Amino acid sequence: MHVKVLGSAAGGGFPQWNCACSNCRRLRSGQFSGRPRSQTQVAITEDGRDWFLLGASPDLRAQIESCPELHPKDRTRSSPISGVVLTAAELDHVLGLLMLREFQPLSVYATASVARILTEANSMFRMLDRVDGQTRWQRVRPNESFRLLGPSGDDLGITCMPIPLPGTYPAYVQKSEDFAAEEAALGLIVSSGGRKLGFFPSVASITPELRKWLATSDLVLFDGTFFEDDELRRRAGTGPQAREMGHIPVGGENGSLRQLAGLNGQRKVFIHINNTNPMLDESGAEYRAVREAGWELAEDGWQAVL
Amino acid sequence: MHVKVLGSAAGGGFPQWNCACSNCRRLRSGQFSGRPRSQTQVAITEDGRDWFLLGASPDLRAQIESCPELHPKDRTRSSPISGVVLTAAELDHVLGLLMLREFQPLSVYATASVARILTEANSMFRMLDRVDGQTRWQRVRPNESFRLLGPSGDDLGITCMPIPLPGTYPAYVQKSEDFAAEEAALGLIVSSGGRKLGFFPSVASITPELRKWLATSDLVLFDGTFFEDDELRRRAGTGPQAREMGHIPVGGENGSLRQLAGLNGQRKVFIHINNTNPMLDESGAEYRAVREAGWELAEDGWQAVL
Repeated sequence: MHVKVLGSAAGGGFPQWNCACSNCRRLRSGQFSGRPRSQTQVAITEDGRDWFLLGASPDLRAQIESCPELHPKDRTRSSPISGVVLTAAELDHVLGLLMLREFQPLSVYATASVARILTEANSMFRMLDRVDGQTRWQRVRPNESFRLLGPSGDDLGITCMPIPLPGTYPAYVQKSEDFAAEEAALGLIVSSGGRKLGFFPSVASITPELRKWLATSDLVLFDGTFFEDDELRRRAGTGPQAREMGHIPVGGENGSLRQLAGLNGQRKVFIHINNTNPMLDESGAEYRAVREAGWELAEDGWQAVL
Repeated sequence: MHVKVLGSAAGGGFPQWNCACSNCRRLRSGQFSGRPRSQTQVAITEDGRDWFLLGASPDLRAQIESCPELHPKDRTRSSPISGVVLTAAELDHVLGLLMLREFQPLSVYATASVARILTEANSMFRMLDRVDGQTRWQRVRPNESFRLLGPSGDDLGITCMPIPLPGTYPAYVQKSEDFAAEEAALGLIVSSGGRKLGFFPSVASITPELRKWLATSDLVLFDGTFFEDDELRRRAGTGPQAREMGHIPVGGENGSLRQLAGLNGQRKVFIHINNTNPMLDESGAEYRAVREAGWELAEDGWQAVL
């Protein structure tokens, strides 16, 4: 399985349009030891020909252009992208679907709750269902594995296991109590040929079950949104705590670095990194701490073959 | 008034993710005489400090980063962007609002119909109204001029006159008969210090009234979506006629070049140019015809001072 990271930042990207925190300011002025990042987007393939997207980022148009493997191959309208797997209804995870609206056949895997939020409460998603066979919505159920199928029903050789995580629906969702709690936030174990990718870009807390799934993965893409619980207030002047936003911080007493210190034997990569996160600064102590603990930081263009 | 074009392509941009027409294919392989373009986005300012956006393109995040004048100026979260004027509910004209969701105060000028379509039929737009004073929706009425006000109510020295145009609501809008027909598609005359910008990126047909407005403008940004009425079918293999999509073609017997041949004395610029449009190719006959008729083609970064 080939895994490509097309985007590695949290919602808003790095730099973020209205942010002048130390990271954003130094990046814009060319005085930052680290790279800009677009919003988190991962693409996977088994055969090198048919690709699936994990999530659909708002930056998807530019991300597709930056990746020659995702360009149309013949002389008409077409795409090597067979479909999308959604793990949540967050805007930075779903808005890219609307960038894929040009009558292109796509399979979209989502829980019934996420599909309803998009298609029943947001009329814009009707643009994905304008012609027969344009979007095939495929139902995902927590803890029930499924095979990825292309738009014409062909098996792409990849199995996904959706792992329910503690979490809530995004703030825009009305009457979120009407939706199944266990469908609010999923992680994914994506496997092919006996090799496993753990995709967990948004993790509120590390449960024993999640720890087990991480331990069986060959490559882990894990929530690196915030380094500190009070990072937004400290570094951007205002904002809720990381944990209030459903993200376990990387650093600190109870952060993911400490909690996952026993996780060895796999490649461990932080993704979905917020613009305020001090570990983005490769000259800083937080970056060193993360690297010394055996973790990598995803950046746009990062890739691995499992 | 300072006018900056941050994006100049039609919906989907150039190249378009799933398109391998001659233009897109040659652009990707470096064999095209012309430039890539992001989706249409214009920014204006009178004082050089407070900016307003005409429309909100899906590419807005990258477009803001590409334009230093739009970066936050102090060391907290802030933005020189005071607000947005919407002229339609098309996805390529409104999705960027969701990129501006980070609790930033903004004035959004829209007709009652467009505001209702966004806020009542699309729950995602609740992200723009999470805290008091975040988004101030300002009502626009066809043929009634209004002054642009910043979020704190300060007059920015710019007047807009919304011109109703023949047109329909986008395909995603349910029960479009419930919305005022004259609010489906607007053009804008934006004036300041006696100088006028005519902003008409989507024009189905040229009425005598529209012709009069164009004649009084110092700078015209006009619908350059398609060169040919059957361009999509001819150049991308499939698709409706330009006029069926609400765009008068540039070329041909009854195209805008011919119809506006008598328009002189102002700067005339085509914008909202589709990826299939042959006039994008600067080595081609269509490009020469347009330039010889006294028109320019907008490209990303194009700017003018009126």
